Amino acid sequence: MSPRFKNIAIVGVGLIGGCVARDVRERDLAGKITGYGRNAKRLAGAAEQGIIDSWHDVYNDSLAEADLVIVGTPVRAIAPIVCDIVPHLSSGAIVTDVGSVKKSIVDAVESRVPAGVAFIGGHPIAGTEDSGYESSFAGLFENRVCVLTPGQCSCSRDVDSLESFWRALGAEVVRMAPEEHDRIFAAISHLPHMVAFSLVNAIVNMQGFDSSILRYSAGGFRDFTRIAASDPVMWRDIAMMNRDNVLDTIKHVEDTLSELARAIEAGDENEIERLFQKSRDTRRSI
Amino acid sequence: MSPRFKNIAIVGVGLIGGCVARDVRERDLAGKITGYGRNAKRLAGAAEQGIIDSWHDVYNDSLAEADLVIVGTPVRAIAPIVCDIVPHLSSGAIVTDVGSVKKSIVDAVESRVPAGVAFIGGHPIAGTEDSGYESSFAGLFENRVCVLTPGQCSCSRDVDSLESFWRALGAEVVRMAPEEHDRIFAAISHLPHMVAFSLVNAIVNMQGFDSSILRYSAGGFRDFTRIAASDPVMWRDIAMMNRDNVLDTIKHVEDTLSELARAIEAGDENEIERLFQKSRDTRRSI
Repeated sequence: MSPRFKNIAIVGVGLIGGCVARDVRERDLAGKITGYGRNAKRLAGAAEQGIIDSWHDVYNDSLAEADLVIVGTPVRAIAPIVCDIVPHLSSGAIVTDVGSVKKSIVDAVESRVPAGVAFIGGHPIAGTEDSGYESSFAGLFENRVCVLTPGQCSCSRDVDSLESFWRALGAEVVRMAPEEHDRIFAAISHLPHMVAFSLVNAIVNMQGFDSSILRYSAGGFRDFTRIAASDPVMWRDIAMMNRDNVLDTIKHVEDTLSELARAIEAGDENEIERLFQKSRDTRRSI
Repeated sequence: MSPRFKNIAIVGVGLIGGCVARDVRERDLAGKITGYGRNAKRLAGAAEQGIIDSWHDVYNDSLAEADLVIVGTPVRAIAPIVCDIVPHLSSGAIVTDVGSVKKSIVDAVESRVPAGVAFIGGHPIAGTEDSGYESSFAGLFENRVCVLTPGQCSCSRDVDSLESFWRALGAEVVRMAPEEHDRIFAAISHLPHMVAFSLVNAIVNMQGFDSSILRYSAGGFRDFTRIAASDPVMWRDIAMMNRDNVLDTIKHVEDTLSELARAIEAGDENEIERLFQKSRDTRRSI
């Protein structure tokens, strides 16, 4: 059973923050939800819609009331914001985030969190193509995975507490080290984005490219490249914040692409078929 | 208005051939539908289901009755089959196919088609993940594009006739040269498959890969790699039959991937964002 929090602070009341707030309200997981952010007008809007109870556009001592702080801002802003927030928090408060990269955030905040306050990295694998609290809805995290990356010094009571919270939102919680998180998500999330962006750019770069040819593209290509329409700034930040892993995974794709190109060039049909079969077997195992 | 054919021969009564046959029946586009193939038992099954009226498991003089022949076999078999069929056809017959590659087929059959018989390459951009006539249904081609690749010597009456046929099935018909078809489809169809296969294999090749990590993969990755479960033999044949274009497009992706890797390695945020923005703009233009 999830502990009921007194006051959940949501920093960055966007799509994810808004969805969390709606679930907290609907499932009665907190006495109060306070929104924080830079844009007073948008925070006031979220309060008018009843997504949050009150709000502040500065990090001030109102944060001392919060027993759970969820930072839902763009990934690059998370670590600086956590550093700004923690001095205002009371002992016993838990701070978490929803960023797609974990190690660089954990590293940046670790030494800045005062004794008595816990920072536990989080990453719910959920989202939509929309952004902003206006697009938020209840139930986004139902049956989704939420990764938590407790540090070596995280108190297990705090981690259990945060895990119960995400479970109460319907998520399956998986714990792993920040490094492991970043290595795994480089492969299954960051790399596919890098490849989709590069694939679309490759097609544009071809001689005589005419965008009208894209209308011949059927389901496969459309599904495949949908993620190439993702937010460039967000993905720039993810690429930068998980740089070593992303570069390593790109290297692996370069290797498998040239392996395939060599087989096609050599007309080695058995090898081509073997490579495709291996891929199909893996894909089918999902 | 589509001409009504006397006898449409469908060679290879699989998913596509079955869908064509069902549409022909439903829209009354032929007096008779005759199925041809190697497997008597399966042809008899298709006839029992009323998909075809009669069938032959050999190419014989019954083909003289056909005024339209549609070859719907796997792509590599198309050219040899067309060469086997044409000696049996009557003057005035039109032969077409539904293969995903055009130039090598057109080149292989061109000199083998007798005077009076027309071969016009075709490629309806439609399909499902299933195969076999059991999965066929009426209406597959509705609002889909069908490419026709008439040769320099194709008689325009024949091309018009075939175009009307596909239009009667609900397709939008686009005419282009076989070379142009293969260049375009290398980019928007063959390349995405090569990349999807290579991406999945790259992930499998990573050190410490454990297939359980794939369960963390969310929508993007799943959509993205769905086509990596496509038929290895079919895609091997496409890669071989459109080899030069496929190799050229792979080279372009290798270039855009290393361009991106260089920008990430250099920490050149403006450049990373520019590359992602370019891709997003293109993708959104579809």
